[in-house]
Amino acid sequence: MKDKTGHYEFVAEPFHVDFTGRLFMGVLGNHLLNCAGFHASERGFGIANLNESNYTWVLSRLAVELTEMPEAYGKFAIDTWIENVYRLFTDRNFAITGPEGKVYGYARSVWAMIDMDTRKPADLLTLHGGRITDYTLASRMCPIEKPGRIKVSSQTACRDIDIRYSDIDINGHVNSIKYMEHVMDLFPKEWYTDRHLYRFEMAYVAESYYGDTLSFFRESRRNGNEFDIEVRKNVGRKEAPFGETVCRSRLIFRNK
Amino acid sequence: MKDKTGHYEFVAEPFHVDFTGRLFMGVLGNHLLNCAGFHASERGFGIANLNESNYTWVLSRLAVELTEMPEAYGKFAIDTWIENVYRLFTDRNFAITGPEGKVYGYARSVWAMIDMDTRKPADLLTLHGGRITDYTLASRMCPIEKPGRIKVSSQTACRDIDIRYSDIDINGHVNSIKYMEHVMDLFPKEWYTDRHLYRFEMAYVAESYYGDTLSFFRESRRNGNEFDIEVRKNVGRKEAPFGETVCRSRLIFRNK
Repeated sequence: MKDKTGHYEFVAEPFHVDFTGRLFMGVLGNHLLNCAGFHASERGFGIANLNESNYTWVLSRLAVELTEMPEAYGKFAIDTWIENVYRLFTDRNFAITGPEGKVYGYARSVWAMIDMDTRKPADLLTLHGGRITDYTLASRMCPIEKPGRIKVSSQTACRDIDIRYSDIDINGHVNSIKYMEHVMDLFPKEWYTDRHLYRFEMAYVAESYYGDTLSFFRESRRNGNEFDIEVRKNVGRKEAPFGETVCRSRLIFRNK
Repeated sequence: MKDKTGHYEFVAEPFHVDFTGRLFMGVLGNHLLNCAGFHASERGFGIANLNESNYTWVLSRLAVELTEMPEAYGKFAIDTWIENVYRLFTDRNFAITGPEGKVYGYARSVWAMIDMDTRKPADLLTLHGGRITDYTLASRMCPIEKPGRIKVSSQTACRDIDIRYSDIDINGHVNSIKYMEHVMDLFPKEWYTDRHLYRFEMAYVAESYYGDTLSFFRESRRNGNEFDIEVRKNVGRKEAPFGETVCRSRLIFRNK
């Protein structure tokens, strides 16, 4: 049996860091999702295997918490493992580490598997004869909070964007990473000069497509360094004046 | 002496392909620039070495020509080598290949080296005792045309965008890859359904920064499948009503 933890190594590429020289959160998010894919494939539960049986993984939630981001040209590694498998969801965790025992931080994710025709969730506990539970590793700690509940009541969008060609992935949806980038882009560059994004959460609720307009609703919480953001599509159209929620995000910054 | 050709291997990651399942041109561009960096560093001419001596490489032109783009999860490789070194510029070429002798296409690039304080170009033929010429490989063919001259006379922008946090790189400039993405995003998604971007050229003229507004001027050429695009910054401001040219691009599409 394959080792329960997947271990993957990376270098922070020069165009993958922001003006402060630290990895973009969206790039880290992309690496996390790739690692999830590698780990699942190596154990017979990858998208490629699932497509044959008409299932696919859907990311429901992601929470990333980092004391620091890898720097340009720096080496880092991502470990990933399955904490729990429930009937309809599985919890996949990540540790982001550097050389010499450095720990950048951790991430938690929640995934469902759906039937691509009916869009209904599959029962994870019976799939492949229940073999997925062979890979759970409950003993490894992931010392960050689970994704929380995010609720935004603002009715005034701080930004609207039309979806572009570069936003769309192979499934015809806006890709999960692009939402992260658009959320980060709600803040001016100066905001990032003396603040570090300590925790980033995303709850994916519905898909959006080319032709949709995304509206971003933002509220600050507590000390002014925390923000809840809701992304809605097609606000103001006759059939649904308040639009439809696509995803919700929470950002917690810390002063440097 | 290091082999004159650098060879680097990649996989087309799932979030790095467009809705047709083919690698985004911007992602390929990022890989090309990384390969240029790897190849130069391995031979003592990388940014890290140069920074010590206060020089940096600046990309002046890029032309990519492809009969096809790598597909999702597909393996591909990039070879890179120096064709020529002149006093102020060097020509670096690329071949993009797949397994079993497949050739996706080629790319050409032109680079200068500048002094970071004076912003003046360095004399490449005398730098490091002229050792850079040890690495030229004029014998390897790069069977695509050199970047041409692009001239756009349109005075009506087809899109204006404000520069965002995600556009800015570690040097505080809009990164070279983001211009490529913004240019691709001028075309609707449907445009890419039955067309393939056969040739992409970019001439980098000036830097742009956070706070700048970019305007895109586009003209179609010949058969309607060729476009010249000029990107200007801060059009309409009092001091320079026509703005300042940041880069120029030519896109040649082919019907699938």
